[in-house]
Order: sequence, then structure tokens, then C-alpha cells
Amino acid sequence: MNEGKLLYAQSGGVTAVINTTAAAVIETCRKHKVTAYAARNGILGALREELIDTSKESATVIRALRHTPGGAFGSCRYKLKPVEENRAQYERLIEVFRAHDIRWFLYNGGNDSADTALKLSRIGKTLGYDIRCIGVPKTVDNDLVVTDCCPGFGSVAKYTAVSVRECALDVASMAETSTKVFVMEVMGRHAGWIAASAGLAGEHRDEAPHVILFPEITFDETKFLERVRETVDRVGWCVVVASEGIRNPDGRFLSEAGSTDAFGHAQLGGVAPALAALVRDKLKLKVHWALPDYLQRSARHIASKTDAEQAWAVGQAAVEYALNGMNAVMPVITRTSDSPYRWKIESASLDKIANREKKLPRSFFSKDGYGITAAARAYLSPLIRGEAPPPYGKNGLPEYVVLKNAPVRKKLPAFEI
Amino acid sequence: MNEGKLLYAQSGGVTAVINTTAAAVIETCRKHKVTAYAARNGILGALREELIDTSKESATVIRALRHTPGGAFGSCRYKLKPVEENRAQYERLIEVFRAHDIRWFLYNGGNDSADTALKLSRIGKTLGYDIRCIGVPKTVDNDLVVTDCCPGFGSVAKYTAVSVRECALDVASMAETSTKVFVMEVMGRHAGWIAASAGLAGEHRDEAPHVILFPEITFDETKFLERVRETVDRVGWCVVVASEGIRNPDGRFLSEAGSTDAFGHAQLGGVAPALAALVRDKLKLKVHWALPDYLQRSARHIASKTDAEQAWAVGQAAVEYALNGMNAVMPVITRTSDSPYRWKIESASLDKIANREKKLPRSFFSKDGYGITAAARAYLSPLIRGEAPPPYGKNGLPEYVVLKNAPVRKKLPAFEI
Repeated sequence: MNEGKLLYAQSGGVTAVINTTAAAVIETCRKHKVTAYAARNGILGALREELIDTSKESATVIRALRHTPGGAFGSCRYKLKPVEENRAQYERLIEVFRAHDIRWFLYNGGNDSADTALKLSRIGKTLGYDIRCIGVPKTVDNDLVVTDCCPGFGSVAKYTAVSVRECALDVASMAETSTKVFVMEVMGRHAGWIAASAGLAGEHRDEAPHVILFPEITFDETKFLERVRETVDRVGWCVVVASEGIRNPDGRFLSEAGSTDAFGHAQLGGVAPALAALVRDKLKLKVHWALPDYLQRSARHIASKTDAEQAWAVGQAAVEYALNGMNAVMPVITRTSDSPYRWKIESASLDKIANREKKLPRSFFSKDGYGITAAARAYLSPLIRGEAPPPYGKNGLPEYVVLKNAPVRKKLPAFEI
Repeated sequence: MNEGKLLYAQSGGVTAVINTTAAAVIETCRKHKVTAYAARNGILGALREELIDTSKESATVIRALRHTPGGAFGSCRYKLKPVEENRAQYERLIEVFRAHDIRWFLYNGGNDSADTALKLSRIGKTLGYDIRCIGVPKTVDNDLVVTDCCPGFGSVAKYTAVSVRECALDVASMAETSTKVFVMEVMGRHAGWIAASAGLAGEHRDEAPHVILFPEITFDETKFLERVRETVDRVGWCVVVASEGIRNPDGRFLSEAGSTDAFGHAQLGGVAPALAALVRDKLKLKVHWALPDYLQRSARHIASKTDAEQAWAVGQAAVEYALNGMNAVMPVITRTSDSPYRWKIESASLDKIANREKKLPRSFFSKDGYGITAAARAYLSPLIRGEAPPPYGKNGLPEYVVLKNAPVRKKLPAFEI
């Protein structure tokens, strides 16, 4: 065994393939005879000294981890404060790293996690402990800069495009006497990447989705209703895909416009039901709506093979970078060709990535703002290619694995976060 | 070619495998050298003389129809009135059948469609035209009597169980700092078959779903909240699956309890957001919810192989029954063994099926009413077994087919429905 241990942690919203990255990290560590620990619930586990010894898991289990959705070690939504505001937290982390001989820290997440990894990469030097920090990309939102795309996004994009194509066939069958408008809400609070991927479901004007509502474009009720009416008149039915992040001209999220529910409580968000009620009341059309929420980001059964391969590649590269002594970097995906689609992994500096956000380029929106362009298709299409289904048991369910997550014995007193 | 033609029509809500039945009907007709027509939008197409000549479709297209969701010829929600109330409609149908030499009529649907097929089977004799009517079972609600299960149900059951297992892994990862309760709403207004199938996702008390709400059991707010709280305390998180049809003690649907949305309009149904708001306000827990709606019944990509095989078998049998001169019957699925699961097709009289509804047997609910029993598992489990994925194109999307639907030239004057 090499000296020192590697600590891996998962952060932010989980995806269908974040565990593929975890499996790559663990298998690559094993190849290099480095012990891989994982932190329980992201950086919180590091602060609390709640570490997991992945060497207690069998090779078979780690292989099954490749095709298991969710975050196997637990994730968290927790951002470290700047060092000036909470130096004690950073000191604690270094203390934990030192106590367990952790030389390499891999943080698997989005913008906030890149920020955490960056802060830690710097503080090691200040506090006199040699720690190498690598950010590992992951987010269904696809909003990290520098990297061409983010592991996790391709699979939710595939789920979305497939679901829209399927429900469109359903609505088309029923439109004569039943539902004429179908509204599906997708994730993406600030950037319309997932909404855009719905556009892959259809190639011609009359194919679903007929209307995509992006968070980058202010919602215009009159224009929207006109477009729906016109589509129903022409096609017979209409499928709308709406990002959860669309806003009214006053800047408020449609999903937060404060409705009251059956129990007299303030209603929980939901753009789809709001749009559905609008269509029903203003256009007098029968409408149905769907809101898949977590189903879309955990749907490992319909994962994109491209996405799974990239999730693996960034995990593998992150370990190589760390063991090679690199610090404050992230393995990113660089696209070298659209057709045939080709990509490679390169390293990028974390300070170019942390706390930035990539929105959909203007050139991806069709002129009317309700669809995607050929440029968007050229970008998005390769990301949903290929199938990577999990193995299924005789009971008809995917064979997902739950790890033992054997805890590493604590060596330090408890720490109040 | 035999003399006479067979007319096939689809009715009611479509499923992931109703087109598998359609493909079986067409291929079996071809085997017997009988021309198969289809009615556009169910019985409406028969009334309007909007007939489709399926012989214009290639063998390749019909093979692809097997794995295409939705209703390829259009469906409808339309129930024929009793003959005393609208004799003209029945006379029109016989007129259309006579004009196109239609000797056999196959109606693919649920309770209402069985009723339509039954009425037509009787009126033929009264009006002096020899027509053989066969009902073909189809409904995701699984509420037809006599048959052990209904084609369409097994696939939505598989979608539901797989989705619950996947999102449970997601919620488990995030519970420490984010969502602690997840509510998923499923179809089933009067019978809890789909809700019950969610129970297959977990086998032990602490596995999701922790709470299933069935339409057969009156919703008890206090008891429900206690159970959620207790689950979060014990497990750390809680997954709730709620049937759209659950009712308050006053008998009203929770989904219709009259809420007001962002636009000031009456809100459209949704049990999941109502339950989510309840959990948030009363238990002060972070909650997410999902409502897959049509996605669940059109998800051909995760169809059950057992379901697809049964959908095929009833289509094939229906044609054989018709050509053998049987009338007013339905091919039903008879289970001959639970383990190993074995089934066969038998004929049943339509008058034993029409307008009846099969609810979940009492023995399928766990004592506390929030889960399913071993008896329910023994019944449900075989129905989700086996995978039958569609072929995928190079673009990463399932290769679903859209038919030409070549119209048969009309011979009669128009008819006002």
C-alpha cells in the first residue's frame, strides 16, 4: 500500500451516475493500492470525522455501484464559509485529515463543491498540511463552466427526451375526446439545459414538445396562450415542457406565486399545475400535467451510456491527478468533435470553475423562444446516446446495491458544526 | 382472402402495451388472410365511418408497433347510450359494418368498452346483421373482473416500483441536510392496484415506500402525520406513495378540495402537493413531491415483459375467437400458478365483465393500511417480471413508429354523433 489515504465525498443533488464516478474512484485507488475512504454526507462527514472505509466492500459490490443511482455515501447541501469567517472549520478538517493520514481529497459536486475544494486546496498550505484537492464534476443542471458538459446531465436529458416522446404518443391518441394539452415540468432553476433536452424528442414543427419554456426567457402569458391555442388548432394537441425556474415579468418564479391548497396552507411550488390551470381557464381546453421531480435525476434505468462513460472517466482521472500531485484542479470534459462525437478528459483550474454558472447560449434558443436550434441539437444529441441499463433481478427490479459503509474508528473528540 | 373484414378499435386511456395487442390482432389477421381495419379514435371512427386499412402498413412497421406506446389509431372516451335511448347510433354502426363487409368487431379497452362490445353483440341480431363482437382487455387500472390481471397494468406497476426504488436512493442520500419526505402520486381513482405495486420496491419495514395511501381506505390526517414523523425519526427519511383517488372522511377527493393557484384560478388536482404542504406545515420537514401522470402509463421503455406477452396473447386470442364464430366474449388471463408463475388465456362472457369493477381484496392491505401483505406480493410480483425494452436508434431514443393510417374510402353520407 502507498502511504496516505484518499478521501472521496459526494455533494449537492445526486444523479443517476454519481455512483459511477464513486466506483471509478474506488477501483482506480485499488489499482494503485491506495486506500480510499469516503466521507458520510459530503463535507459534513469530514468535519464530524464520520469516515467510511471503502476497502471493506467487495469488488462485486463496487462493480454494482457503477449502475446504482443516488449517492452511496450520502450527500449534503452545505457550503463552507470563507476562512476569515470560520477558521475553526478549516482547522478541524486539516485535523481530521492529519489524524487519518489523508493526503488527497476528492469532492464530487457542482459549483459550490468546486468552491469548497478550492478553499481547502489553499488552506492546506496556510495550516502547514500537504493536502491535494481535486474537484470532480457532477450536476444534472449542466451549469459548470469550462467543462463541455457535466456528468449526470446526459442521463436526465435522456430521461426527459424519452418521457416527452412517450407521453406525446399518449396525448396524441386521446386528444379527440380527452386531454388536448399536456404540461411537463422539468428541473433547472436558473439554466434551461434540461428543458432544452426535451427538444430532442421531436424534430419537426408539429412533433412534441411544441412549446418549451426556459428560465432564461421571461414568461409572457398572452404569447404562451396564443402559441398553445395555435398548436392545438393545427396539430390537434399540444405538449408543453416548462422549466421549474420560469419567471413572470415581475421577476417572481411562477412556482412561488403563492397559491393555497386543499388544507388552506400555502401551496408548494409547481409550475406545471399553474400553467395547466391557466390553459384550462383561459383556453377552456382539457389539460394534464406531470412533475417527475427526483424521478428524473435518479432514473438510472434509462441512463445515457455516454453520460455513464464520462462519469467513470472523471472519477478515474481525478484519482490519477491526485496521485500525480496535482492540486486545485478538476477533470473536465473537452469535446473535440460533434460528428462523430469525440471527447477527452483534461484538467482545469478550480478557480476558473468555482461559483460560476453556465447558462444556455443565446444561439440555442429558436427565434420565437419556444424551441431549440440546430446548434443546440448538435450539442445535446451526443449526450443522450447509447443505453447503459442496469442488470435486473428475477423479481423484475434493477439490481441496485446498498453498501455496508463500514465506519472508520474515530480518533478525535467530537466537533460542533 | 377470407370473406369479410375485421374491425379493431382502441378505447379509453392508452397504455404502454395496447399497441402490442394491436400488432397481435393485425399479425394474426394476416396469418388467416383476413383484412384488418382499424377505427380512428375508437367507436367514434366506426360511427363516423373513419376507417383505417392496416394492410397498407408493412410487416416491419407492424413489428415495430409491438414496442410503441400510446394508441396507434387513436382512442376515445365515449360510451354508447342504451339502445332505447339512441337506436340511431346502433343502426349507423350496423350500416357502416354492412357497407364495409365487417363481420368481426374487436374493442380493446376496459369496463366501458366491454359494455359497448356487449351492446353491439346483441344489437346485430336485432337489426338482422351477423356481427361477432369480442372485447379485448386493456387498462392500467387493473380493475376488470374475471381476468386475473389486465394488459397495461404490469408495465405501469413496473414503472412505479422501479421509480420508487430509484427515488428512494436519492432521498436517502440527501436526507441529512435536505429533503426528508418524498411524496409520489400514482394513478388509480377508485382502485389501489398501482399504489399497491409501489410496495414491490421494498421488502423490509425500513425500505421505501414507507407509507402507501390507497383509495379504498379513508385518509386520516392525524394517523398519516404520526406515521411519517415516526418513519423519519426511525429511518431518517420517508417515502409516501399516494393514489390520486384518496378521500377525506367527508368523502371528497383530496385532489379536488378546491385550492387556488398562482393565477388565482381554482387549482387542478394533485394529491401529492396537498400532502407535501401538510407535511411541511404540520411536521416542519423539507418535502419534495412527484406526479408522473401520463409518464407512468406510456413508459414503454420500462415495460414488463410479462405484461407485453399477455398484451400480445389477448390480441391473438381475440382474433381466433372471432374467426371461430364466438360472440360477446373476452379473452381473459387465468393464473394457474403463483410460483412458478403460469398463466393461460381463456374466454369469458362479456356480460360477466361489463360495468363491474375489481377493487383490491382486503387481504392485500397490511393491518395498519399503509402497506401490502405477502398475498399482495405473490399476486403482483410476477406481473412486473422480465424486461422488454424497445430498440433504440443511434440518436439515443427508442425507435417508436407512427403509422400511415391510410383511410378507407367512405361509402356513406356523414353522420351526426
